[in-house]
Amino acid sequence: MLAGLREISAIGRDPSTGGYRRYAWSAADLALREWFGGAATQRGIAWHADGIGNLWAWWGDELGPGAVVTGSHLDSVPDGGAFDGPLGVVSAFCAVDELRARGVTPARPLGVVAFVEEEGARFGVACVGSRLLTGSLDPDRALGLTDADGVSLAEAMRSAGADPAEVRPDPALLARIATYVELHIEQGRGLVEHGAPVGLGTGIWPHGRWRYRFTGEANHAGTTRLGDRCDPMLTYAHTVLSARKRARLAGGVATFGRVLVRPNGSNAIASAIDGWLDARAPDQPSLGHLVAEIERAAFERGRRDRVEVGISVESQTPAVEFDAGLRQRLGSVLGGVPALPTGAGHDAGVLAGHVPTAMLFVRNPTGISHSPAEHAEDADCVAGVLALVDVLADLLAR
Amino acid sequence: MLAGLREISAIGRDPSTGGYRRYAWSAADLALREWFGGAATQRGIAWHADGIGNLWAWWGDELGPGAVVTGSHLDSVPDGGAFDGPLGVVSAFCAVDELRARGVTPARPLGVVAFVEEEGARFGVACVGSRLLTGSLDPDRALGLTDADGVSLAEAMRSAGADPAEVRPDPALLARIATYVELHIEQGRGLVEHGAPVGLGTGIWPHGRWRYRFTGEANHAGTTRLGDRCDPMLTYAHTVLSARKRARLAGGVATFGRVLVRPNGSNAIASAIDGWLDARAPDQPSLGHLVAEIERAAFERGRRDRVEVGISVESQTPAVEFDAGLRQRLGSVLGGVPALPTGAGHDAGVLAGHVPTAMLFVRNPTGISHSPAEHAEDADCVAGVLALVDVLADLLAR
Repeated sequence: MLAGLREISAIGRDPSTGGYRRYAWSAADLALREWFGGAATQRGIAWHADGIGNLWAWWGDELGPGAVVTGSHLDSVPDGGAFDGPLGVVSAFCAVDELRARGVTPARPLGVVAFVEEEGARFGVACVGSRLLTGSLDPDRALGLTDADGVSLAEAMRSAGADPAEVRPDPALLARIATYVELHIEQGRGLVEHGAPVGLGTGIWPHGRWRYRFTGEANHAGTTRLGDRCDPMLTYAHTVLSARKRARLAGGVATFGRVLVRPNGSNAIASAIDGWLDARAPDQPSLGHLVAEIERAAFERGRRDRVEVGISVESQTPAVEFDAGLRQRLGSVLGGVPALPTGAGHDAGVLAGHVPTAMLFVRNPTGISHSPAEHAEDADCVAGVLALVDVLADLLAR
Repeated sequence: MLAGLREISAIGRDPSTGGYRRYAWSAADLALREWFGGAATQRGIAWHADGIGNLWAWWGDELGPGAVVTGSHLDSVPDGGAFDGPLGVVSAFCAVDELRARGVTPARPLGVVAFVEEEGARFGVACVGSRLLTGSLDPDRALGLTDADGVSLAEAMRSAGADPAEVRPDPALLARIATYVELHIEQGRGLVEHGAPVGLGTGIWPHGRWRYRFTGEANHAGTTRLGDRCDPMLTYAHTVLSARKRARLAGGVATFGRVLVRPNGSNAIASAIDGWLDARAPDQPSLGHLVAEIERAAFERGRRDRVEVGISVESQTPAVEFDAGLRQRLGSVLGGVPALPTGAGHDAGVLAGHVPTAMLFVRNPTGISHSPAEHAEDADCVAGVLALVDVLADLLAR
């Protein structure tokens, strides 16, 4: 295991599942931030947190233009794995060591970054750190987001000693970044099928999240005849199965993974059910068609069940194409590694709208992610670091 | 509205829904118990709580043999209606008034009872008061039941000033009861179709509750290809729809109204889902067949989804036939009111194994129950009281 991953392996770990609960501005997050500072200091590199809470360590003059930045995030989903996020930050510090060991003298500043609240596990919005930096998320809206306990982001920052008044976009910093490269564990089995430890990202599928509300009528589960029922569980169940079928036909993915049932009693027909649809597809027209088909199936079944169906968009993220010139350059440095898209959102997807951006993926033998079972072989992690080193050496040389 | 229902109409009412949250030994329950005592005292009738917490008011000598008892319960399901339970207790007190107004002098003692924790809404087991009284629920098991906050029944009793050491069966009391009659709002639309305000119960369908656990594999909702998933939401959804279809074919009912999803994140394929099946049918063979068919469908689909299905019985209640002789006697007193079974459990179903027992149902215009929308017309409630008076006058005369 890379030393950095070992150093943080106990932070925010749930001993009952082995998974991680590393939520932004939590005690676990503060411990990870301290680790980041230590990793930079130990390498004699200046570091600081920006006003948003993103962590930056600069090898070279951070104010210099044409910077190359690499990194990822340290927070996790509930019960997440050890690699999603930290692998990119740890690999960035390893790359600094290896570049020095190779005697590379960078012609440009190299920044190592850890973006805050990438998963959105605590405040419900993903990529908060990169979106605030780039100005694609309004600071007031972000600071007003609340966690499950009703604590706002502003309050959470204050409790952690950060000043919410400092949260604002930083176009000047963005303008000094010439390239952003994010290394990330793959979250599928594309590289397994290619038989390669490392791959290059082509882009991110467009994706979105929709809340379906199915409203029926609470009633007694024992005495209400089937024909008299308005049972939203039936409409929900039918929609779940339709979503799967439609996703298969569209070549995309569609998932209901979160459900809230009222009153959620074992002898009561539900009065209302909220189900969240996560849908993604290779391109925008396919996604639009997929989502429309799932909606149509839900409305049709709702009429049959006498259940009202309401749908609201919670988030929509357009497709991201990573910079074609940069991809070509990295591809030739790495000597023809596989190129593959991903269905997952990343800070790299946010940065890509502002800065030439690339992603490196490290093989995931099972494809499992967002789970304690997420895994990458040590040899593949090392291959990832070496690929990152080659890429950075090239980018820093000119 | 019957005066008694009006007197308690604000107790335990959730102002946001208009539904009731009257859980055993809660503040709302204690207020209802105080009301019961007041209703008895106001009528010059001695009352007391037994060691279990059931409330008894006796017109005549409670130690006399051949007693006639009538009543129901005062607790509610979460967000329940105003009639399920209280209508039977309020009607019992009204019947005492009317019997006195008619100058009836009972030849036997008349007891008015309110059984504690009938719904099982707080401690998860239904008919706790009547089952402890009859010895069909072990006192130690009952006292160890815990509510959602981890408070045991024993602790809840102590907090309310009751002594858990006094919880035990009372065969001597049971032996003194010659007849139990429970009046209850109908929880379906049988009487609407018969065009009658009052009906006579024939029995209670056999019913049970099963916990289905669907275990799959947590994974990323955006990056895990459909073919690589073990998504328990699919198996759950298929089982919900199968249960409905099988119930229709069996002439019974089957409901999934309670679901717990882990980790319940909108961008995570669920790792495990618990769903509770409530199933009921006109007779035991039909119920057994129905439950077996739902199981079979769940296992089959689980194999297809690579999801493990585990099923455990949470409760099973055999069919109840109310005493045939008593039914005939009440039928002739009431002059041929409709006779109908019910799918709902009642304290009367528990008592029926020990004491000749009957039920009177009062028309429910929508059939809705276990919901704030539960309703009975005033005229029908009065018709229910008058039917109960006729029945009691007959039973008390000999």
